[in-house]
Amino acid sequence: MPGNTIGHIFRVHTFGESHGVSLGCIIDGMPPGIKISKKYIQNELNRRKPGTSQYTTQRREMDKINILSGVFNGITTGTSIGLTIDNIDQRSQDYNNLKNIFRPGHADYTYYKKYKVRDHRGGGRSSARETAMRVAAGAFAKQYLKNIYNIKIRGYLSQLGSIKCKLKSWNIINKNPFFCPDINKIEILKNKIKELKKNKNSIGAEITIICNNVPSGLGEPVFDRLDADLAHALMSINAVKGIEIGDGFSVINQLGSENRDEISKTGFLSNHSGGILGGISNGEPIIAKIALKPTSSINIPINTINKNNENVNIQIKGRHDPCVGIRAVPIAEAMTAIIIMDHLLRFQSQCGKITQISNKK
Amino acid sequence: MPGNTIGHIFRVHTFGESHGVSLGCIIDGMPPGIKISKKYIQNELNRRKPGTSQYTTQRREMDKINILSGVFNGITTGTSIGLTIDNIDQRSQDYNNLKNIFRPGHADYTYYKKYKVRDHRGGGRSSARETAMRVAAGAFAKQYLKNIYNIKIRGYLSQLGSIKCKLKSWNIINKNPFFCPDINKIEILKNKIKELKKNKNSIGAEITIICNNVPSGLGEPVFDRLDADLAHALMSINAVKGIEIGDGFSVINQLGSENRDEISKTGFLSNHSGGILGGISNGEPIIAKIALKPTSSINIPINTINKNNENVNIQIKGRHDPCVGIRAVPIAEAMTAIIIMDHLLRFQSQCGKITQISNKK
Amino acid sequence: MPGNTIGHIFRVHTFGESHGVSLGCIIDGMPPGIKISKKYIQNELNRRKPGTSQYTTQRREMDKINILSGVFNGITTGTSIGLTIDNIDQRSQDYNNLKNIFRPGHADYTYYKKYKVRDHRGGGRSSARETAMRVAAGAFAKQYLKNIYNIKIRGYLSQLGSIKCKLKSWNIINKNPFFCPDINKIEILKNKIKELKKNKNSIGAEITIICNNVPSGLGEPVFDRLDADLAHALMSINAVKGIEIGDGFSVINQLGSENRDEISKTGFLSNHSGGILGGISNGEPIIAKIALKPTSSINIPINTINKNNENVNIQIKGRHDPCVGIRAVPIAEAMTAIIIMDHLLRFQSQCGKITQISNKK
Amino acid sequence: MPGNTIGHIFRVHTFGESHGVSLGCIIDGMPPGIKISKKYIQNELNRRKPGTSQYTTQRREMDKINILSGVFNGITTGTSIGLTIDNIDQRSQDYNNLKNIFRPGHADYTYYKKYKVRDHRGGGRSSARETAMRVAAGAFAKQYLKNIYNIKIRGYLSQLGSIKCKLKSWNIINKNPFFCPDINKIEILKNKIKELKKNKNSIGAEITIICNNVPSGLGEPVFDRLDADLAHALMSINAVKGIEIGDGFSVINQLGSENRDEISKTGFLSNHSGGILGGISNGEPIIAKIALKPTSSINIPINTINKNNENVNIQIKGRHDPCVGIRAVPIAEAMTAIIIMDHLLRFQSQCGKITQISNKK
Repeated sequence: MPGNTIGHIFRVHTFGESHGVSLGCIIDGMPPGIKISKKYIQNELNRRKPGTSQYTTQRREMDKINILSGVFNGITTGTSIGLTIDNIDQRSQDYNNLKNIFRPGHADYTYYKKYKVRDHRGGGRSSARETAMRVAAGAFAKQYLKNIYNIKIRGYLSQLGSIKCKLKSWNIINKNPFFCPDINKIEILKNKIKELKKNKNSIGAEITIICNNVPSGLGEPVFDRLDADLAHALMSINAVKGIEIGDGFSVINQLGSENRDEISKTGFLSNHSGGILGGISNGEPIIAKIALKPTSSINIPINTINKNNENVNIQIKGRHDPCVGIRAVPIAEAMTAIIIMDHLLRFQSQCGKITQISNKK
Repeated sequence: MPGNTIGHIFRVHTFGESHGVSLGCIIDGMPPGIKISKKYIQNELNRRKPGTSQYTTQRREMDKINILSGVFNGITTGTSIGLTIDNIDQRSQDYNNLKNIFRPGHADYTYYKKYKVRDHRGGGRSSARETAMRVAAGAFAKQYLKNIYNIKIRGYLSQLGSIKCKLKSWNIINKNPFFCPDINKIEILKNKIKELKKNKNSIGAEITIICNNVPSGLGEPVFDRLDADLAHALMSINAVKGIEIGDGFSVINQLGSENRDEISKTGFLSNHSGGILGGISNGEPIIAKIALKPTSSINIPINTINKNNENVNIQIKGRHDPCVGIRAVPIAEAMTAIIIMDHLLRFQSQCGKITQISNKK
Repeated sequence: MPGNTIGHIFRVHTFGESHGVSLGCIIDGMPPGIKISKKYIQNELNRRKPGTSQYTTQRREMDKINILSGVFNGITTGTSIGLTIDNIDQRSQDYNNLKNIFRPGHADYTYYKKYKVRDHRGGGRSSARETAMRVAAGAFAKQYLKNIYNIKIRGYLSQLGSIKCKLKSWNIINKNPFFCPDINKIEILKNKIKELKKNKNSIGAEITIICNNVPSGLGEPVFDRLDADLAHALMSINAVKGIEIGDGFSVINQLGSENRDEISKTGFLSNHSGGILGGISNGEPIIAKIALKPTSSINIPINTINKNNENVNIQIKGRHDPCVGIRAVPIAEAMTAIIIMDHLLRFQSQCGKITQISNKK
Repeated sequence: MPGNTIGHIFRVHTFGESHGVSLGCIIDGMPPGIKISKKYIQNELNRRKPGTSQYTTQRREMDKINILSGVFNGITTGTSIGLTIDNIDQRSQDYNNLKNIFRPGHADYTYYKKYKVRDHRGGGRSSARETAMRVAAGAFAKQYLKNIYNIKIRGYLSQLGSIKCKLKSWNIINKNPFFCPDINKIEILKNKIKELKKNKNSIGAEITIICNNVPSGLGEPVFDRLDADLAHALMSINAVKGIEIGDGFSVINQLGSENRDEISKTGFLSNHSGGILGGISNGEPIIAKIALKPTSSINIPINTINKNNENVNIQIKGRHDPCVGIRAVPIAEAMTAIIIMDHLLRFQSQCGKITQISNKK
């Protein structure tokens, strides 16, 4: 059973390869009567798009969104929304020499083992370029959640290599090329990326996502818990190798007396849980962290094999991100928004209209 | 849309509350013609069941499995399999005083916010008792994977509090009450649990799952990646707050040159990826880790609120695990087995018969 | 992908064979806070159950419903509802001689071709006994729809062989063994069945289902139309070979000027459409008809083959209905109720609370 | 939960309005390594497309298919296939006067009741123009089934008004504008359509679909039977009001001794069942019939209401089919192909590789 769909009630289906004609998606289940700002969608895409600074890949794509259906006179009609983005700046010839070779750290080997055939150009379907459509679809969810329920879903770069970035201010995050929330770390990050580019190497990163004003009650026992669905959605992002909700792995060495969040009539007194108890949102901020591995496509030679199972040594060219984690911020926001949106509609199907919105920032 | 189903082609639907009549599940999609050992199923349930040592909860349940359909003369027929386990040793009166109170760290608050009504006895549907059916269903998957494809799915306690347990031997894991793979740590663990019981406190844990002989090609781009589906399934286990695949969070501080696994004609030369590339299995062992929070039900008083939003102070009684992580080993194995099974059948639907089985241990 | 589930948001999963231990189902997605009358559920089961008159099969089953979860103090909790019915009056030995033989008109041949193994006793999973769980699950839906929205879903026998039964009165339908709505036809039906029993033969039937007070707006473009989902659900009932919505097959010879229903400010002036336009309910009564083939198990010898592909002649014993169509009335009501319920919840997920209820009878 | 998806393993998701930018779909689950003939796809679209004769609508659309992904060097890659068709010949102004009016027999009223907003131009999403994408997606299925398994899915016009057309020859069906299988009826049909056009009226029709060489074993008990899924798919086609499998409604007046198909070692001796027993294919030809209502948009005035619930009288202009049933032949073939394809892949997921292909014509 194929896997190009995410969400159950708010559903997103995607298609498209890195060097194909277009990327596209269908959003099915968008509530009707919602004003859609094409500018907002485009702005989200621009946050992710390549070629905007010297610190990310130099592939230049306009990532111009086409809305083909489901929106009439600027208002959603409730019917399925078709979206496409045309690919412009492919350099497929860069990949000619990799046609029969499996790049280490990439999906080349596994796609070939699965399908026995693959579009090798730029990774084909396995390329992170595919995530552009996630951002577009997520933008519909983000805008709905923000406009109708004041739910804010925001992310930032919380670590790059050994450089930790604390959340000092939401305001600067979109004003630097790293989605860094600490103005004092920006120069350090710049130098780190320059060093990596010089060494033709890459580095991992951690992204933190915080959701404010999510009402309590979202999440479905026992399998489709909100945290389980978030884990699914976030782990489906290219290069992600770890997920934490709330205190995450640090709970291993916590005592029960430390970990459980006390409740008072004005709300929870701490948020070790990351806003989710028993798989259901509790009204506190939802906090998720993801770890992204370093870009595998680097300019340093490495041994691998080809389709004939012969050893070969390759040096990968192309225009790659020194840290794929950076541009993952809008992607992780989008995936989170899709899941929250889906669960909000799931709540409504069984339990009626959402009313109680926490007003915590 | 409700969430009591996991898997797409190998599907498991569950029901049942901690203090209800019975727990049950339906397994739908089991291949026909497979010999089922009821003894094997029962043995898996016994690994999880409470009351087997002084180091876990003292609730005593037989957890006797009833097979109601789908198996004829010891052979699966391909039709849906109905399973139940009757609840025997409830002490619902232990919970009378908690009827209107939300226990911190539990799902009491969120279930109430979602449904406006709840079965408070022993946590009702949110109780980890529900996981018994996961183990039963997972046992069908485990046995199929082992018997037909020699795929082994095994877990162990890799950390409890600050005590780390390395995989020294698979053989001892089922011979100690902690699923500990290092014989030298067993006494240390015993003492730790005794200390916790004395202090009426609890502790977190980490479980590691390793899957051997999984064929390459399992996992569906782009959302239902094998790692994404594993993350979903593992995060759906009570108390889990973090997931890692392969190197997990340590990738944040890795260079691309360190992280990418070199390939030679005899296979991969390292396994930073944890056996999954681009969301698809690569034939290497699949390695996943999960972090479980400490039991929230401890005998130390804490402040909370009741349904009337009044502050109350409670002291939780009942017979609880000092570390819920321990008994999560068979549960995590079961969830992993369900996902691998599901993806094996998903592979077959689109890509034909699985043939290439790696023989790595 | 297995097929033992119906509904998307209000979901019913079933298991159980004709001569197995128990039949069972899980209802997932039932709204919380709903009072459930076990008596009502049992009453619906009694309408379908065998052995209640000399005009249907003489197998005697109590069909006693067990509610195992999801209902607490008589109120639904929103969690999954487990139900079972134990089989009591099997006579499996009646089927010993059919172990290796494919009964014409039955699923014996096709189940064997599909699964290569089958539970032959009483048809196993393919037996219409399976529909008991549909009636139980449907009763939850019927009661919800009736109590919360005054939606009435009722059926009757509209034809048996050449005997047509017009809807003269809803009141007598449950007071005769044929679900016949015309008091003048009851004796004729009795004589017809007696004649069939004497001749060891069986006959087909038509059932009509009428749903009153269904709000407009139910049904999802473009594939999951309300009529398409009804057609799916009704065609899934054993022995059904035809479905009509509204004017059904008679539209073939209608002009556009006759067929289209005029609208006035007090509502539609006719109901050729059967209450569904463009796949969405329009507030008029929903009218569906189904054709059921005659019972294939009759006491007249017939040629067939066995597993070794040898010609054999068989004479089927057992206690069978002379007209399976009769007892299909509560089953068809149940399936219709499940679909209406599912679409009502689907409406709420995307379009908000249902308010406009038509008050047409 | 939205409804723009059909199929479970071979899945088709569609979008697009009659007068929007483009129609489109995603095919997810197509097996990899399959040669795709764009010419074949286009040819199927041409069979359905409007404006090809004076006997159907005069709207002229090229219906040119764009393949945006999932096919590389003419071979399917197993990844999702994106398709679009641009709308060319809309005359949206024809619909300006209908902006606030509900056309009788159309979905205008129900879409508005459901969504409170609608794209009124040409029926928006509810237009039969949407079926172009069904034909495109179905063409992928048809080609696969034909090339790999020699499964043939073919339909014809079996009745128009009172004119019955028997299957005399498959060869002439695509050589006349009515998909008529009887050369002697073509003039009669031409005259009938001319008469209808003169009278500004329309008529209903019956389409018959026959599937040859479908292997036994397709269909999933107990809900997703092959006939139930076919009924769903066929009923989802615009204007369909009735479905029959095999003998359909004529079973009502059949005896069991007539209806059940005798089996001999060379196969079934009759095919009352229409190739499906217990919801599973038996290797015989699958036979389905559908009844389509007359076009509701005719040039004869009718009373209706507008959004303000005021009575109005309208006369519908536009370029409509005198009999929508005619062009439904390729659509019904496409829907049938999608379902057979889906069930073939479903079979493979649980029961392994399909091998036994019947060779009946």
